Amino acid sequence: MAAVAPSELAFVPFVSVENMMRLIHRIGIEEMLKGIAGYIEDDFRRWESFDKTPRIASHSAEGVIELMPTSDGEVYGFKYVNGHPKNTKSGLQTVTAFGLLADVDTGYPVLLSEMTLLTALRTAATSALVARYLAPEAADTMAMIGNGAQSEFQALAMRALCGVSRLRLYDIDRKATDKLIGNLSGLGFDLTACSSPQEAIEGAQIITTCTADKQYATILTDNMVGAGVHINAIGGDCPGKTELHSDILKRATVFVEYPPQTRVEGEIQQMPEDFPVTEMWQVITGAAQGRRDARQITLFDGVGFATEDFSALRFVRDKLAATGLCQQLDLVADPDDPRDLFGMLQRATLSEGAA
Amino acid sequence: MAAVAPSELAFVPFVSVENMMRLIHRIGIEEMLKGIAGYIEDDFRRWESFDKTPRIASHSAEGVIELMPTSDGEVYGFKYVNGHPKNTKSGLQTVTAFGLLADVDTGYPVLLSEMTLLTALRTAATSALVARYLAPEAADTMAMIGNGAQSEFQALAMRALCGVSRLRLYDIDRKATDKLIGNLSGLGFDLTACSSPQEAIEGAQIITTCTADKQYATILTDNMVGAGVHINAIGGDCPGKTELHSDILKRATVFVEYPPQTRVEGEIQQMPEDFPVTEMWQVITGAAQGRRDARQITLFDGVGFATEDFSALRFVRDKLAATGLCQQLDLVADPDDPRDLFGMLQRATLSEGAA
Repeated sequence: MAAVAPSELAFVPFVSVENMMRLIHRIGIEEMLKGIAGYIEDDFRRWESFDKTPRIASHSAEGVIELMPTSDGEVYGFKYVNGHPKNTKSGLQTVTAFGLLADVDTGYPVLLSEMTLLTALRTAATSALVARYLAPEAADTMAMIGNGAQSEFQALAMRALCGVSRLRLYDIDRKATDKLIGNLSGLGFDLTACSSPQEAIEGAQIITTCTADKQYATILTDNMVGAGVHINAIGGDCPGKTELHSDILKRATVFVEYPPQTRVEGEIQQMPEDFPVTEMWQVITGAAQGRRDARQITLFDGVGFATEDFSALRFVRDKLAATGLCQQLDLVADPDDPRDLFGMLQRATLSEGAA
Repeated sequence: MAAVAPSELAFVPFVSVENMMRLIHRIGIEEMLKGIAGYIEDDFRRWESFDKTPRIASHSAEGVIELMPTSDGEVYGFKYVNGHPKNTKSGLQTVTAFGLLADVDTGYPVLLSEMTLLTALRTAATSALVARYLAPEAADTMAMIGNGAQSEFQALAMRALCGVSRLRLYDIDRKATDKLIGNLSGLGFDLTACSSPQEAIEGAQIITTCTADKQYATILTDNMVGAGVHINAIGGDCPGKTELHSDILKRATVFVEYPPQTRVEGEIQQMPEDFPVTEMWQVITGAAQGRRDARQITLFDGVGFATEDFSALRFVRDKLAATGLCQQLDLVADPDDPRDLFGMLQRATLSEGAA
């Protein structure tokens, strides 16, 4: 340790993976999903106050690394996130993430947090919030196509926010479905493993597609989808990666987060640039219509937007004071005299061990 | 702690401010400046292998928060950095920063580091590297206009790389000059405090301007600058902020890092879009000429580019194995089965205290 301890300003609260797990257990996962959905809804309501930009992506043969910044003029936030579908083959996560909030007025970071878990929560919270606005009334059955890392979170959020209790499950790899059933058994769901997407969507009012291959795939074709369903298409999030046949898009009313990003990454990348979409923030503020009638197909082309991460980080920050579930990270140098960074370095009396 | 410790993959080496200070003391600051300059030079030589983009800035009334990503196809890096000139009035740093390296092939972070100190080092290393290519032969005297947080680092780098030993110092606030003299006294420099920029540049072959006001300023006017000098203009780094009168730019040969960024942020934002500039990477590879003759005015319009941060982070990463000057940060969730993020959460047996 330094002879003179760094001042408080030098420290940034950091939420590790372990502390995030503690926070989720402390609050309860369904309560936390509802809490985050509430923050996301609040931030959609004040959509126009945000600085918005499509995420900044660095593509490679195997995947993508993205930065997702936004700001409401008082707080700045960004997330680092990768997407590497082939990672699972070598025992690694497809998606890992961390994020930061900073004070716009000073530029100083005020929170650093793991976001692998938090992204799973905010993605599920967003899907369920959107479904609450768009799904047919009294929807209680969801088809879940793709039973990977995101699937349990989707199930719990859809129950917490929309009352879904029956799940019809399909994955190209039956082991994934077995894992999902193992994780959710005993939690009060009615679970059915299905042997095809077609079987999975029988009787479902909500259809969630959440697969991760980096290619144009056709998880759903047009003839499979009946009237009156809500499709929650969240697996597509990359140029060159889609899940739905374009004919479904033509029959559905398509809802998106931020059109400039979704047109590049979402299912609608298959469609012309002027393909009509409705922005979710407008549905939430009442400026645009959501579901029009019981036979309409609504489709949420969700790709994940920076404001949702911002909302989730705000939620976490607001819970830290009461729970203390963070470490103090020596991330920012803070000399006594801000112009004297060199003096701080020169005068530091440091032991030789690593902290 | 968790009953089952996170696997190695969950941890990211983190270099705190304190460990960065230890690393600088261990290596020696002038050696470290030379080392970083070497990495920067190497990366300029392979300029064409980098993914390059102007930094992504979020401007507010009081300052700017920026993300600076780049990638060489194997390693991805980015820096978070703010610039808030009014911060010093409330005892805060104008510039704070941290950065990250990640593996392009998996998207997993491999290093998180403080970069407030490291940015000071890389900025000075870049200036001195450029001066080594452009300054007149046997330059031994530098005028330093602006004696803030960056000034000592500039002085040491210019000595380590270019042999500068005489410094002529000016700051609008005499206390800043006194601080600089206090910090450098006893380190073998010949130091002269001056009462005007004009006095400071008398007899200097290198003129460094490094001021931080967010406005169009005119630290140097054309009639002050004689033939044969090298101007190292590093204070301008924001739209609306410049330090030099445009007439100087017209007389000088202007060298830049990355034109799309410098034309927005640098001194040349005052000039037409087709104002001729030479890219430093081309000087370093030999594809473009540097200093042509002894009477030429060379001007480095330095704004700081992402590859320089990438180089500095590479240098730090390469020193960690031998020094161990890092902590292991629980930043990335790593379930046994990558598709079973929820299972990891569900099975975690966590004590209730903060780690």
